[in-house]
Amino acid sequence: MDTPDVLAWRDGRIEALDQTVLPYQVRTLSIATVDELIDAITRLAIRGAPLLGAAGALGVALAVRQGERERWDAARLAAEIDRIAAARPTAVNLAREVRAVAAHLRTEAGAARGEAASIDAAAVEAAAVGVLAEAAEVSRRLSVRGAAFLRGACGADREGRGDRRLRVHTHCNTGALACLGWGTALGVIRALHEEGVLDHVIVDETRPLLQGARLTCWELGRLGIEHRLICDGAGPFLISQGLVDAVVVGADRIAANGDVANKIGTYSLALAAHRAGIPFVVAAPESTIDPDTPDGAAIPIELRAEEEVTGTAAPAGTRAVNFAFDVTPAELITVIVTQDRVVKPQPF
Amino acid sequence: MDTPDVLAWRDGRIEALDQTVLPYQVRTLSIATVDELIDAITRLAIRGAPLLGAAGALGVALAVRQGERERWDAARLAAEIDRIAAARPTAVNLAREVRAVAAHLRTEAGAARGEAASIDAAAVEAAAVGVLAEAAEVSRRLSVRGAAFLRGACGADREGRGDRRLRVHTHCNTGALACLGWGTALGVIRALHEEGVLDHVIVDETRPLLQGARLTCWELGRLGIEHRLICDGAGPFLISQGLVDAVVVGADRIAANGDVANKIGTYSLALAAHRAGIPFVVAAPESTIDPDTPDGAAIPIELRAEEEVTGTAAPAGTRAVNFAFDVTPAELITVIVTQDRVVKPQPF
Repeated sequence: MDTPDVLAWRDGRIEALDQTVLPYQVRTLSIATVDELIDAITRLAIRGAPLLGAAGALGVALAVRQGERERWDAARLAAEIDRIAAARPTAVNLAREVRAVAAHLRTEAGAARGEAASIDAAAVEAAAVGVLAEAAEVSRRLSVRGAAFLRGACGADREGRGDRRLRVHTHCNTGALACLGWGTALGVIRALHEEGVLDHVIVDETRPLLQGARLTCWELGRLGIEHRLICDGAGPFLISQGLVDAVVVGADRIAANGDVANKIGTYSLALAAHRAGIPFVVAAPESTIDPDTPDGAAIPIELRAEEEVTGTAAPAGTRAVNFAFDVTPAELITVIVTQDRVVKPQPF
Repeated sequence: MDTPDVLAWRDGRIEALDQTVLPYQVRTLSIATVDELIDAITRLAIRGAPLLGAAGALGVALAVRQGERERWDAARLAAEIDRIAAARPTAVNLAREVRAVAAHLRTEAGAARGEAASIDAAAVEAAAVGVLAEAAEVSRRLSVRGAAFLRGACGADREGRGDRRLRVHTHCNTGALACLGWGTALGVIRALHEEGVLDHVIVDETRPLLQGARLTCWELGRLGIEHRLICDGAGPFLISQGLVDAVVVGADRIAANGDVANKIGTYSLALAAHRAGIPFVVAAPESTIDPDTPDGAAIPIELRAEEEVTGTAAPAGTRAVNFAFDVTPAELITVIVTQDRVVKPQPF
């Protein structure tokens, strides 16, 4: 999906596809301020761990531009950049890429002269745009690597083409919309499709914000990949009935011990896959691995507004608990696939 | 909940609360024909295994009345009654109670005279109304028995009142709306509440038709029982985090080996409870146990219209798989509680 761009830097603004209105509308946001960016991130107009990383990178460039217009001092600029990094807590990519690009804020010459806020805006923008380009390239490598693993693990290698075509379950949205390029889990699925070994994809709705029903079905439709939508509660049953050959999901943060935080609902699929003895694969860029988080219990799990859950059908006044992510323990994960490696979870 | 009645026999018609429009509207259907009854059952205006049994029982009386008006012969009457029994396949209670009441169709005197269609309408109606009354009474006994088990299993017996109040997760709707009287799983929860040992209830939405969000939250609100709504995918995570003390669900059919068919999504909760080491309790009347079904694989699982899943948010043309129930294997179930016994699943 190249038109419209999922995310781009254009004339000092961030352009982003508004993922809250898909598939009903294809609308591009033009973001000029840090407040607008944080709003787009918190209401999930921009979402998906790798895309959040890229948006955070562009956010630093955006903050520099806004700071020039509004004559922010260095402290204000740093505070605004910190606000971007903290806009959502669970996906490590956001804060990581913000920090990486913010490292370009001080020029060597400026630093030598003791100018705290001496900024090479061009260098910052180049670094930010570089994060986008790298994300797309990383997702392609990751996709091909994950597909190769699954072909082997499920006995569907190309020699057997036609004999064994895979039925792959995925959760939430991890395609171009979430990651640029091909995506993570959905990139693996796309690679299986292009290699002729995919039968169909099982997509779950991913309540409360329905990224599976809205976004993954939309992407798979555009790609011409056969798929079936199910309710979130149905995945474990389909797996138990032998209707799924493998589960592939993305990740928002991978702890040092291999525990994985991903969209709420992931853990139940891991439990079912483990019991059924089918592969449960986590596909994520290396940047999603966070060596500073020792295990799943240390991952901050975002608790979102109750109205996302109660707004659909509950009686007025109903209270809710709305964790946006869950944690799958390392021992339930068959492998983690990154652009560089396929590893059985163990201390990274 | 006694006004309005969930289900009643009045002036030769079935009156039933329309459960498709709750909690937005409280509307009573007045059902005069077999076609109207089957429509109400298939679109889930009348639902819940015990309530389906009672509605099937009243359905036989309704068919007799319609047969008298329309001068059906015995074969037509039998065929119409068979249609009621087959309106939904998974809950065994529907066909079972239809058969039980249909046994009253032939009077002994009529049979002795060889009159195939000699019908004692009054006896049929009395038998049907008896099923309703018994369902309510059974649910009370079952509720108290289940609560006693959980108090013991969770160390919340009345001596410890205040020390340990239980957080109980339930799925779908199993209260008065589903069962008359107190309900099955929700009846157990109501008994815990009345005994002062309930902290709060975790209710999941139960996609696609949202019986948890719409019906269970409505019932718990009317009963003044503290509760929190969550998305279906979140239950296993809450269980893994120690936020749930026990899971209690109903059943649509219990096979002879103890496997349980219940609303889609149940299995994932059983997997999570098993891993967390907390009780997973199935609460159902004895009539839900089907000795003629050897195991879960032999239970017919209703596959419902794709639009129930795709209608919410998916792009036009999206296909779905919509199993209405799943099967939880006996070994994941701590106990099955009926009105008469608390048993660890084993061949019945």
